[in-house]
Amino acid sequence: MTHICETGLDEVLKTLAGKETLSLAVVTDSNVAAIADRLLAKSSAALHAPRIVIPAGESNKNLKTLAEVWTGMENAGLHRRSVLICLGGGVVTDLGGFAASTFKRGIRYVNVPTTLLAAVDASVGGKTGIDFQGLKNEIGAFALPAATVISTQPYATLPHVEMMSGYAEIVKMSFVADPSRLDMLLNPDRVLHDEVLLADAIRFAVTEKERIVAEDPHDNGLRKTLNFGHTFGHAFESLMLERRQPVTHGRAVAHGMAVALILSHMIHGLPTDIIHRYIRFLRDNYGRLPIGCKDYNRLLQLMRNDKKNESQHIRPVLISADMRPIIETMSEETLVEEALDLWRDW
Amino acid sequence: MTHICETGLDEVLKTLAGKETLSLAVVTDSNVAAIADRLLAKSSAALHAPRIVIPAGESNKNLKTLAEVWTGMENAGLHRRSVLICLGGGVVTDLGGFAASTFKRGIRYVNVPTTLLAAVDASVGGKTGIDFQGLKNEIGAFALPAATVISTQPYATLPHVEMMSGYAEIVKMSFVADPSRLDMLLNPDRVLHDEVLLADAIRFAVTEKERIVAEDPHDNGLRKTLNFGHTFGHAFESLMLERRQPVTHGRAVAHGMAVALILSHMIHGLPTDIIHRYIRFLRDNYGRLPIGCKDYNRLLQLMRNDKKNESQHIRPVLISADMRPIIETMSEETLVEEALDLWRDW
Repeated sequence: MTHICETGLDEVLKTLAGKETLSLAVVTDSNVAAIADRLLAKSSAALHAPRIVIPAGESNKNLKTLAEVWTGMENAGLHRRSVLICLGGGVVTDLGGFAASTFKRGIRYVNVPTTLLAAVDASVGGKTGIDFQGLKNEIGAFALPAATVISTQPYATLPHVEMMSGYAEIVKMSFVADPSRLDMLLNPDRVLHDEVLLADAIRFAVTEKERIVAEDPHDNGLRKTLNFGHTFGHAFESLMLERRQPVTHGRAVAHGMAVALILSHMIHGLPTDIIHRYIRFLRDNYGRLPIGCKDYNRLLQLMRNDKKNESQHIRPVLISADMRPIIETMSEETLVEEALDLWRDW
Repeated sequence: MTHICETGLDEVLKTLAGKETLSLAVVTDSNVAAIADRLLAKSSAALHAPRIVIPAGESNKNLKTLAEVWTGMENAGLHRRSVLICLGGGVVTDLGGFAASTFKRGIRYVNVPTTLLAAVDASVGGKTGIDFQGLKNEIGAFALPAATVISTQPYATLPHVEMMSGYAEIVKMSFVADPSRLDMLLNPDRVLHDEVLLADAIRFAVTEKERIVAEDPHDNGLRKTLNFGHTFGHAFESLMLERRQPVTHGRAVAHGMAVALILSHMIHGLPTDIIHRYIRFLRDNYGRLPIGCKDYNRLLQLMRNDKKNESQHIRPVLISADMRPIIETMSEETLVEEALDLWRDW
């Protein structure tokens, strides 16, 4: 149950409480902690609940931090009917959601995302977890939040690069679920500066994600289409991280979508018109990635090892000529290299 | 899906594999490891699968061991379609089941219990987990095994005290689900020395547990009746552990059931005849516990803090005069003390 703008955290907590007094704790990170009082100001129950503060950053999305959150939940006296509020970006909602779903074999949690990326992606859909031994989200659980409360307000203070990271996931959803929105969405200057349009875009992305997740909660088929742009995007993200030049998730995915669109043209005849419009959007908003042909071997290796792979073949989501998502099995990797060449030459 | 005697592990693994070649690993403990080859002899797939060996004993049912099992699963190359076989007692099936249910957000696992207690209790019902900060099963998940394969054969080598520990849970199930079996079950000398009767008793306990769990998987109501004898039994178990004189789980529960039956007489008029028969069974098979009236305060404290408590009242399962389980709320603790007095005087 996701609430966008309309319903505040206070109202959601009252519904969850029913006739009881709700026992609560808030998990957040060291960056968000500084503004947590302001973000929670409208809910006195949440404002005065014990806080568990974890160190900010993806490198802390690990077992040590998870154990600290469990300990914090013990110290806060949480029991089986309690609720954990996860206030933060994707690291907080992923790790906090996993901590809640395993505490006393599972208590309820509510996500309050503070980044656009977390709002449209991590905080919806119930994929929780931590990184383990260098592998992203290697340990975790499917556990839906009792509610996600999304307000457009906290994003006003986000750096532009963070906004564009989340925005890429909204554009992705348009390709996967409703291409008629592309005309509007490929014009981010307009959408991001109009509160009504932004709220509508967020609502669209979240609603479609919830619909797809409800049909395929455990990622066996339909949900895999949400991976559009991610087979290549994750490889870009990992490569840049290995080089200690990390890029945002959304920027990597934005570039991954370009590769997927080029392959879609090569294999399924996707019209070049849409590719040209997308490349213009990419160029104007995400800049080039410093990746050359000498990186192809490593990139292909990363694509093959994608967690979602069950075979040794790369399986990207492509788009058909009539704009429907298709899960492709790439038996010929030379096609992927050709697409990477075209992407570098755009 | 539980298979008792009829179906071997090999057949179960073939069903799970379908048309694929099954990717497997076996988690077991340092005691069972020595006889694992013999226990797995009939399934070449399981026999030759990578083994993950954890140190034996409840004190190792912790986060450190859990991380070792996850690492072992990585090293064995397990992926989302793989299966983890948990070969051992309750610590192995609880911890192994939790490791599987969180590895890559959940892979399938198969329990092969090697103690009678694990066969009739831990390995069925999907309560997985680890101890955390001195609290039993504080972190975990509800995750049903893909199958549990129970053979009566490995128990032949178990020490008598271990057999009687599991046997107490079978007797408990008879009180909760089918009192007509008590006549037979209160005669363990006969049941334990007759393979057909033992297999039948195990089948009864497992089938009833699965039925109750299917009706109430997340322990919100009916499943709580399985807690018969456990409110007092857990307190006895914890007290003896604090004194460094640990007793088996089943022995503690056997004594806990006596207290619950005495209270059932006091509150609901349960006929004394059944209590006398039960006390005889208890005396002959489980011996006295060295607990005196000076221990009552600590015992009551332990009962109040039971994880299943949502209020501050002790909530034991009692038995009505017509032999049905009832979840009682004890607002008067003096009644519990009286029952403890009568239990000590038996």
